[in-house]
Amino acid sequence: MDIILNRRSIRKYTDQEVSDSDIHDLLKAGMSAPSAGNQQPWHFIIIEDKEILQKIPDIHPYAGMAAQAPRALLVCGDLSEETSPGFWVQDCSAATQNILLAAESKGLGAVWAGIYPREDRVKNFTELFNLPEQVIPFSIIPVGYPAEEKGRADRFKEERIHKNKW
Amino acid sequence: MDIILNRRSIRKYTDQEVSDSDIHDLLKAGMSAPSAGNQQPWHFIIIEDKEILQKIPDIHPYAGMAAQAPRALLVCGDLSEETSPGFWVQDCSAATQNILLAAESKGLGAVWAGIYPREDRVKNFTELFNLPEQVIPFSIIPVGYPAEEKGRADRFKEERIHKNKW
Repeated sequence: MDIILNRRSIRKYTDQEVSDSDIHDLLKAGMSAPSAGNQQPWHFIIIEDKEILQKIPDIHPYAGMAAQAPRALLVCGDLSEETSPGFWVQDCSAATQNILLAAESKGLGAVWAGIYPREDRVKNFTELFNLPEQVIPFSIIPVGYPAEEKGRADRFKEERIHKNKW
Repeated sequence: MDIILNRRSIRKYTDQEVSDSDIHDLLKAGMSAPSAGNQQPWHFIIIEDKEILQKIPDIHPYAGMAAQAPRALLVCGDLSEETSPGFWVQDCSAATQNILLAAESKGLGAVWAGIYPREDRVKNFTELFNLPEQVIPFSIIPVGYPAEEKGRADRFKEERIHKNKW
């Protein structure tokens, strides 16, 4: 519960590298997400090439922080893996959220920058990473050690809860 | 990490009731999810009326287990709260995943049964709960104490990981 409640979007990172082992765990967490009919329609690109990281701000209006991050993870949906059509977005969302929580549990900072369904962003990432036709760039997650501190956010709203009926 | 890796879809429940306090924590976890521009476009209906729970299998082909669950949570998207159009599905997915992980952390069993984007399911839940036009039923999560044991699933696939390019 503490990991879930304490997780915040971290957009500033120190120069400290993120280990291969931590990145492996983050991806393992992502792939442990539930998916419709257990279809697991995801792929992940680990971005650690500085030149590529520095191109991200040019192709995504809210991912400028990727240029300063030691690494970023690009989560993609693979439509050819879909056995429950229409659910790949939810599956990739669950994988993204698992990655954010795994990062929080390791003292890393990360943020979910949405790509799909914005057409311009989808086009830009598809071109930069030369993605095959059936693969849709879904979200990009810059990851690093936090260079900003954020307290717990209280987003609880009693008025959003209903009992048995609307 | 253990919570993330151990979480499984639990579809059989004991008769033991789930406390109000645990349900409150699950919803708090749901509302702590990140959302596009922090729009928080969600509502939650706690279903504990046995008559309503027993109607669920008739309106959702894969939610038969709701009839035996002590409670279920209906996650809804509220389009009127969207400030980043097109992202409510991802936001509600993150909230749903947080709820599943919070349940696992409390020794509860739960499962994500998808409603949206299946038109028949959306229509059925909209009618049963008399939802306003701008509110879309997104997922239903039966919750109870597990009456089935499942080991950790290993879904890690090395071949889904790429470096810097496809």
